[in-house]
Amino acid sequence: MKTLLKNARILKMNDEPLFDGDIVIENNRILYIGSNGESYGPFDIVRNCHRNLLMPGFKNAHTHSAMTFLRSKTDGYSLHDWLFDVVFPREKLLKPSDVYHLSKVAYLEYLTSGITACFDQYYFPLMSGQAAKDVGMRILLLGTFNHETSAEDLVNLYEGFNSESESLVRYCFGLHAEYTATPEEYKALNQAIHMAKAPFFIHISETKSEVEDCFKRRGMSPVAYLEKEGFFDYGGGGYHCIYFSDEDIALFKKRNLSVISCPGSNAKLASGVIPLEKYLNAGLNIGLGTDGPASNNCLDMFKEMTLAFSLSKLSTQNAMSLPASEVLKMATINGAKAMGLSDCDILEVGKKADIIEIDLMKPNMHPINDVVSNLVYSGSKDNIKMTMIDGKILYLEGQFFVNEAIEDIYNKAQEITERIEQELAAQKANKR
Amino acid sequence: MKTLLKNARILKMNDEPLFDGDIVIENNRILYIGSNGESYGPFDIVRNCHRNLLMPGFKNAHTHSAMTFLRSKTDGYSLHDWLFDVVFPREKLLKPSDVYHLSKVAYLEYLTSGITACFDQYYFPLMSGQAAKDVGMRILLLGTFNHETSAEDLVNLYEGFNSESESLVRYCFGLHAEYTATPEEYKALNQAIHMAKAPFFIHISETKSEVEDCFKRRGMSPVAYLEKEGFFDYGGGGYHCIYFSDEDIALFKKRNLSVISCPGSNAKLASGVIPLEKYLNAGLNIGLGTDGPASNNCLDMFKEMTLAFSLSKLSTQNAMSLPASEVLKMATINGAKAMGLSDCDILEVGKKADIIEIDLMKPNMHPINDVVSNLVYSGSKDNIKMTMIDGKILYLEGQFFVNEAIEDIYNKAQEITERIEQELAAQKANKR
Repeated sequence: MKTLLKNARILKMNDEPLFDGDIVIENNRILYIGSNGESYGPFDIVRNCHRNLLMPGFKNAHTHSAMTFLRSKTDGYSLHDWLFDVVFPREKLLKPSDVYHLSKVAYLEYLTSGITACFDQYYFPLMSGQAAKDVGMRILLLGTFNHETSAEDLVNLYEGFNSESESLVRYCFGLHAEYTATPEEYKALNQAIHMAKAPFFIHISETKSEVEDCFKRRGMSPVAYLEKEGFFDYGGGGYHCIYFSDEDIALFKKRNLSVISCPGSNAKLASGVIPLEKYLNAGLNIGLGTDGPASNNCLDMFKEMTLAFSLSKLSTQNAMSLPASEVLKMATINGAKAMGLSDCDILEVGKKADIIEIDLMKPNMHPINDVVSNLVYSGSKDNIKMTMIDGKILYLEGQFFVNEAIEDIYNKAQEITERIEQELAAQKANKR
Repeated sequence: MKTLLKNARILKMNDEPLFDGDIVIENNRILYIGSNGESYGPFDIVRNCHRNLLMPGFKNAHTHSAMTFLRSKTDGYSLHDWLFDVVFPREKLLKPSDVYHLSKVAYLEYLTSGITACFDQYYFPLMSGQAAKDVGMRILLLGTFNHETSAEDLVNLYEGFNSESESLVRYCFGLHAEYTATPEEYKALNQAIHMAKAPFFIHISETKSEVEDCFKRRGMSPVAYLEKEGFFDYGGGGYHCIYFSDEDIALFKKRNLSVISCPGSNAKLASGVIPLEKYLNAGLNIGLGTDGPASNNCLDMFKEMTLAFSLSKLSTQNAMSLPASEVLKMATINGAKAMGLSDCDILEVGKKADIIEIDLMKPNMHPINDVVSNLVYSGSKDNIKMTMIDGKILYLEGQFFVNEAIEDIYNKAQEITERIEQELAAQKANKR
């Protein structure tokens, strides 16, 4: 299987300037980038990009994909009430097959936003992983698979998922949050991390009260506690990371941990504004995530980029803060670094072909003064002309190529959503 | 000319619930909304909306459309430096025909975002108006046409433009800002307002220093000064309106003035965060604008809605602040009210047909728990299936129907952009 993407502007995201030329893909990897792709023929697919932009796909570095069923169902709550009163009671009604079907809606949405990989945490992760394989989405699964999982089981999962270099699905250790993990989970995870010498991720310092409560219970910040317990001995990082002390920042730097910022979710839940400029100056690696569709509610990297630079410029009162080029790195290569996706981070010969085509013939891209500024400051999902993952074109000019009718995916998600609301109503009626 | 839009969900924006049915348009007005549109045939155009959403188009209540030539050319400045060092020197090189061509790029962009009317202030407004007519965009032009315009000329303009009820182009009195208007402009405008008994709009309280400087020069806020001089005697309002005192708010309420908020521009220039919640509680009418493409840089109502609710929830630390339904009113009927567009604000028999179709078959709209929440919290430009202005479909499924090849519009804008940079460089070389 050989594909030629010809006549494109190419942004490799490796600090080289924009380049006019072709990309040749053989199976799932980039075979050639240069000015004469035709010479590598014959091809199974030839696409003339008409001087549109080819670049690495966006990396959605924090999400809970299957939460699509809660989209627009749970608006107007702050994090604590949202989680305990609205989300958890409904999640208890989820079946494994629900997660399989609900995740697919999110994966389709990623394709429309040029997202080629997601870092996903949710119940029944094997189902999220299977759905990703079936759609063609690249996914990094996080977490314990159930509360009884032993350290040995976790290590087996880790090694099993990560031994196949060509698989779309990988696995990373992690917990939901310092305040929700059980003692058994803490113990098993800690052992597993040290047995596998593997990185660890967790929701951390997302709200002010989370940090204050941790100080009350443990006498230190969540970051300090997890470090003390050795969870960060082999790297990793945190999601949200809004309320870091200088000590927390220094610790993240020392351990080379990644900050995954989710400005859309943090805004909608009124959790707070992350000091990205400060973290950048401290040398931290910062990726971007959408968080789940119940707290955002959209899964759109353009929105996350917009909120990232908008909130940084406003909170520092400095229009120079977080220029377009930095934001674009966060949405692509920094996310890839956090997720350990060193084989599909930039466009380079030998890398896996996770490539998106940006439509420059839309009015928001004109005039073409600066392609990167146009993309970050003016871009939107309607500039996503093509999304290719692992060498396969899964989304092209508004159409999905995912081996399943999208209407069926939507209908299944709608059914599940309505079933859960009915079950919840019945539970409430029974309690009376 | 008769058009049937059938089999749609219809959001009239008149407080009635969502309605399943058809809309019939005769020439430029809505002839029928109900469950049996077919009975009004025969039709020239029949469009099956397949249960997508029809609603009134967005109103972009503040912009400088022709500033497309500065998009991605002027990033990383605060308002004052941006205006005086970057923008003004380039604007001096603009020819009237430049404004005609550059505006068209913005109008195309409005169509992709479901924007059916704009409130535009720029040099050579007759050219912006002509371009709007030629593309089919509805426009409200603001301002003095040149610094020497007399009160009588202004009143003639006002009456001339606003006497034709079927015209796409209307005219409103206004000035750029308290700190840029000349004494001659102030005088002529003030006379004209009182002769025509007409509303008045102006950039106001956009930055903290603007308000502080006005206090130093005039001993009062810009709002208080303009009120004292009688500019608001017949209504109108202001653009930006970030730094209002309680007295300013009370005055806006008393005079029934509109606040036009431009959160995208305010964020990118680090101007500040508008206290929308406070203004809403005070009963002010609030519309949304993109501002010009040099300060935003995109002309996308979905982005403005996202920033409006995000910044309101964050600044009030309240996830309930500015719910989706309020934001959608701002982007549609409130903007229409500010712009005096009472004939195309809601979907109702007899109103002008400024209608957009929202594609609900995209993954970001699923499951369908709440259409308005989905639209505001999850929507993006790729949900704009159709944009109709004055009964004419100008944008449908990614294609423009504007009597001119879009490549020609882009090329012309690119030429002008490059010519201005060359002239600026030549000027600088001459000065050395």
